[in-house]
Amino acid sequence: MNETIWDLAHLGHVELLTPKLDQSTRFFTEIMGMSITATAGDSIYLRAYDDYEHHTLKLTASPQAGMRHFAWRTRSPQALQRRVEAIRQTPYAIGWNDGDLGHGPAFEFRSPDGHLTEIYFETEKYRCGPQDQSALKNTASRFPGRGINVRRIDHLNLFASDVRAYRDFQLETLGGIMSESIVDDLENMNPRAVWFMVNSKSYDLAVTLDYLALQGRFHHLTYAVNSREEVLIAADICLENGIQIETGPHKHIIQQTFFLYVYEPGGNRIEIANTTARLITDPDYKTVFWTMEERKRGQAWGLPTIPSFHTQGTPMPSP
Amino acid sequence: MNETIWDLAHLGHVELLTPKLDQSTRFFTEIMGMSITATAGDSIYLRAYDDYEHHTLKLTASPQAGMRHFAWRTRSPQALQRRVEAIRQTPYAIGWNDGDLGHGPAFEFRSPDGHLTEIYFETEKYRCGPQDQSALKNTASRFPGRGINVRRIDHLNLFASDVRAYRDFQLETLGGIMSESIVDDLENMNPRAVWFMVNSKSYDLAVTLDYLALQGRFHHLTYAVNSREEVLIAADICLENGIQIETGPHKHIIQQTFFLYVYEPGGNRIEIANTTARLITDPDYKTVFWTMEERKRGQAWGLPTIPSFHTQGTPMPSP
Amino acid sequence: MNETIWDLAHLGHVELLTPKLDQSTRFFTEIMGMSITATAGDSIYLRAYDDYEHHTLKLTASPQAGMRHFAWRTRSPQALQRRVEAIRQTPYAIGWNDGDLGHGPAFEFRSPDGHLTEIYFETEKYRCGPQDQSALKNTASRFPGRGINVRRIDHLNLFASDVRAYRDFQLETLGGIMSESIVDDLENMNPRAVWFMVNSKSYDLAVTLDYLALQGRFHHLTYAVNSREEVLIAADICLENGIQIETGPHKHIIQQTFFLYVYEPGGNRIEIANTTARLITDPDYKTVFWTMEERKRGQAWGLPTIPSFHTQGTPMPSP
Amino acid sequence: MNETIWDLAHLGHVELLTPKLDQSTRFFTEIMGMSITATAGDSIYLRAYDDYEHHTLKLTASPQAGMRHFAWRTRSPQALQRRVEAIRQTPYAIGWNDGDLGHGPAFEFRSPDGHLTEIYFETEKYRCGPQDQSALKNTASRFPGRGINVRRIDHLNLFASDVRAYRDFQLETLGGIMSESIVDDLENMNPRAVWFMVNSKSYDLAVTLDYLALQGRFHHLTYAVNSREEVLIAADICLENGIQIETGPHKHIIQQTFFLYVYEPGGNRIEIANTTARLITDPDYKTVFWTMEERKRGQAWGLPTIPSFHTQGTPMPSP
Repeated sequence: MNETIWDLAHLGHVELLTPKLDQSTRFFTEIMGMSITATAGDSIYLRAYDDYEHHTLKLTASPQAGMRHFAWRTRSPQALQRRVEAIRQTPYAIGWNDGDLGHGPAFEFRSPDGHLTEIYFETEKYRCGPQDQSALKNTASRFPGRGINVRRIDHLNLFASDVRAYRDFQLETLGGIMSESIVDDLENMNPRAVWFMVNSKSYDLAVTLDYLALQGRFHHLTYAVNSREEVLIAADICLENGIQIETGPHKHIIQQTFFLYVYEPGGNRIEIANTTARLITDPDYKTVFWTMEERKRGQAWGLPTIPSFHTQGTPMPSP
Repeated sequence: MNETIWDLAHLGHVELLTPKLDQSTRFFTEIMGMSITATAGDSIYLRAYDDYEHHTLKLTASPQAGMRHFAWRTRSPQALQRRVEAIRQTPYAIGWNDGDLGHGPAFEFRSPDGHLTEIYFETEKYRCGPQDQSALKNTASRFPGRGINVRRIDHLNLFASDVRAYRDFQLETLGGIMSESIVDDLENMNPRAVWFMVNSKSYDLAVTLDYLALQGRFHHLTYAVNSREEVLIAADICLENGIQIETGPHKHIIQQTFFLYVYEPGGNRIEIANTTARLITDPDYKTVFWTMEERKRGQAWGLPTIPSFHTQGTPMPSP
Repeated sequence: MNETIWDLAHLGHVELLTPKLDQSTRFFTEIMGMSITATAGDSIYLRAYDDYEHHTLKLTASPQAGMRHFAWRTRSPQALQRRVEAIRQTPYAIGWNDGDLGHGPAFEFRSPDGHLTEIYFETEKYRCGPQDQSALKNTASRFPGRGINVRRIDHLNLFASDVRAYRDFQLETLGGIMSESIVDDLENMNPRAVWFMVNSKSYDLAVTLDYLALQGRFHHLTYAVNSREEVLIAADICLENGIQIETGPHKHIIQQTFFLYVYEPGGNRIEIANTTARLITDPDYKTVFWTMEERKRGQAWGLPTIPSFHTQGTPMPSP
Repeated sequence: MNETIWDLAHLGHVELLTPKLDQSTRFFTEIMGMSITATAGDSIYLRAYDDYEHHTLKLTASPQAGMRHFAWRTRSPQALQRRVEAIRQTPYAIGWNDGDLGHGPAFEFRSPDGHLTEIYFETEKYRCGPQDQSALKNTASRFPGRGINVRRIDHLNLFASDVRAYRDFQLETLGGIMSESIVDDLENMNPRAVWFMVNSKSYDLAVTLDYLALQGRFHHLTYAVNSREEVLIAADICLENGIQIETGPHKHIIQQTFFLYVYEPGGNRIEIANTTARLITDPDYKTVFWTMEERKRGQAWGLPTIPSFHTQGTPMPSP
């Protein structure tokens, strides 16, 4: 039996495109409670208070919403080298770039569905100053006490026109475990959604079927708060500030995430979530499969899955 | 730069000794909300509702309280092989045993301070029946709705007479990262307490200085609940049931754990804890050091560290 | 300006009818965490751990679900006398009964919609024994650590075919304040739902329009837990025990209650709720009105009001 | 049996003196999350987001910390008249003033220990504008999403040199119930602390023995948050902002309040608290007595009462 590949450390950052850069920035700073670490050209770099890197979110002005790229950090330079070699064996490799503000050289590739992705190790850890030094030395920076107070980047959800292709590429080339999956039924096992785990969090990336059959779209980006109570408070904060709530708070039956989905002013879907104490530390965890029949029961406590979940992604096609 | 060794998956189980087996068992089942999976000879095997293995706690009758052994599970058979080879290079190796109820062959060794330890990979995953099948298929068994409802084993804290020796052995031979440490001061860096991380939880094992200078003692075992609110409820449940509360609930400044310390009827210290959303996903996390001077400030919100924390371990020496 | 009448102290108890007495009793004891204080004939008397009276719920075997009666406790014997005199001025008075287990003589009347109601002052306060004495002397009995652990009766919701008539009777004859109300629109102010407040809780009784135009039906009875986190845990407990969840957890925009609605096995709707820190201490609180137009927005965070809320009450008419 | 007097509606407002008006104001706005409703002379008027009156806190510049006055609102103009007549029968009456910003004429008196007190009915309810209108029409203004986000004034704690005198005056002249009390022992029943209830909250005013035997001092003022989780978050916010935490978070055994005590920059003690779902709706609630022997056990979960609680009040005597 081959050993599972554990070369990816975690989701690094996501670059979101927004037609309303100012309003999107205000949403992430004033409502989400994040901080700006840099501004360069048409881009704003942001982080949550306990994100340890320079940024986990890059907002870039663009005519339409969507995701320009996202990044994985590896566990070591050697792990990066191994993954690059593996990617080069596939048709998806692009090549090295020089890095960006906050991180060193990254190797670019496309997902089988076309999402621009990069993988890197060298990073600039966030150094707080007197203004944002936490009294808790093991926190990357001070608890903001502003808006939703998101703690750290949690996971990314992509749409794909071909979930199977994404799944095979991810597991064979990048490693980790598929912790859960929706399949048509237990006979054909045709995947409609997959959740990938690369550390002890039960997922860092989810890829779900795009009912519009478009390629390379973005579904949502999630930031974690410390408790379910703060997800509930987040719902009030969004309500009070005119932020569109799509669904929630409720508990996903898959992954058990306590979720709230909203739209940032630029049109991208953002989730605020808490996973309670759930972790997967079992190194040979067996994938939990859910059939379409089971999915009819809705979320954990019966809330129907909202139909827009299957079609609403960014960018949206012109009407 | 060598790659960090990530061969340990997680803390597997702990065997606690108790002079009051019946009462201790009642504590873990009725108060903590755990379940018995097997009884054999003088031992009772227990697990929390989301522990995925056969057991995480083995209670064994004994004239005095303490810990007989604890175990690490590795990430793969190959990882087990690599660690056994490394342990064999040290004076601490004992040899293979045939396993126990719930897991396969394990390699035994002593910590530098004498704690009996084992390392294994083959395990029997818990299979729930109709009685305890969860409606959430990704949960190992049904939420009990009884007492404290602990979710899973979290971490182990040992006393050691020589913290430095333990630390060096752990990092060099078993791998992982030292996430935090108390040192006398930043000049001599003499360690008084160390926290070891082997996955994304910020620690699975802590080793702290035994002020009585005894060897191989047990400090506490921790089970996790889903929220801080449940730690507060746990305090009421202990209060209502005559369980001795030592200290808490409060927040540790080190590791940020929201804690409650109690004594099970056999005399061993047990912690109920929640870590909010804190995880360490940084693969080259730099150890956070705390000086004795800083420790004078007490826990996160100022609660003084209780003096018994430095001397009260099991077994206690005869008066 | 006349002074507001503050003669009612609180909702006293509710007698629910169930065709499945054993199963209903198990639901209230094992799932809700309540205790039986007496059994007499076909009735079981129950209370939550911090209910101060002998019982707040009387379950009585009956061919079909529904409510036989409910009761208000007054603030004093004099207040009782005053209210009885007022009721006698209406066509709804019935007369005195001899009381029941747990309380003294009560004056019976019908609501304008026909609900059997009683009003009393003399009561038997619950006296716990060594088995259920709380370590907190200011709690009526010990925190059970079983199931949902409901704390106290909170409020009652009735259906009425004529909400206006109920409203006028309640305010003129029994007193208190109408804290919130749904009206068709702000021109005609035709009431469709009313919430009555008699102490600092923002409501003890709600009366909502029965879309089936039936008289005297029961909508739901609510027990309070200490936190929203416990409402979320309650949802898991119901899910794990096959209790039908109708809707929630979510936050009502009216009254801000954080709710979970389930059906007890006998068919009556039960709510588990937390109101966070909301109280109304303003003695001349002005009713908050909601139009049907506003109600289209659903609950606080957008969850649509479930259609069964307008028609599903007990008893249900034969099909 | 006489009827209990229920003429007081609730604690209205408190005027605190501070030698550091700017810093105190910043504490209440930035840390506590309150808002300024008016500024007049040396005074700043503030309210929490769900306080329904013009203000609940008046901060006034002064050479030393302390309380200038506090106020009760009555349930009606008639209730005010009745209480004024009762006060006039005592040696403590002063007379009517013209009111202040936000409320109408108030009748002034001194407590038996000398605290300046007023009682009023006419009040100016807070009217929010487009800037702070809540999406929840039943909330006095928008949830701020800033700092601790206190919801409403909760209670006041005074020091007294003669607790018995205060108690007798309060119950005989102002009404309400003494919900709990500390006495030397159950033989002499000499009161050392008393808690007064005037609505369904289990107390609006506490009066505790001043071990320095000074007259008329202030102990603390409490604002409520929605959950215990928010008290824990408040502790982090205070820690991160250099606000001195005196004790907590922990649960009082008396009244069961989940508390956090801090000092505002001017030197006055402030509590942030949550009472979970505890209410007293029993109109003839029997006082719960605690002896000094019982008090040795500390707070609910064993935290020792901090010694400064018995001596530290404002103003502090010159050293």
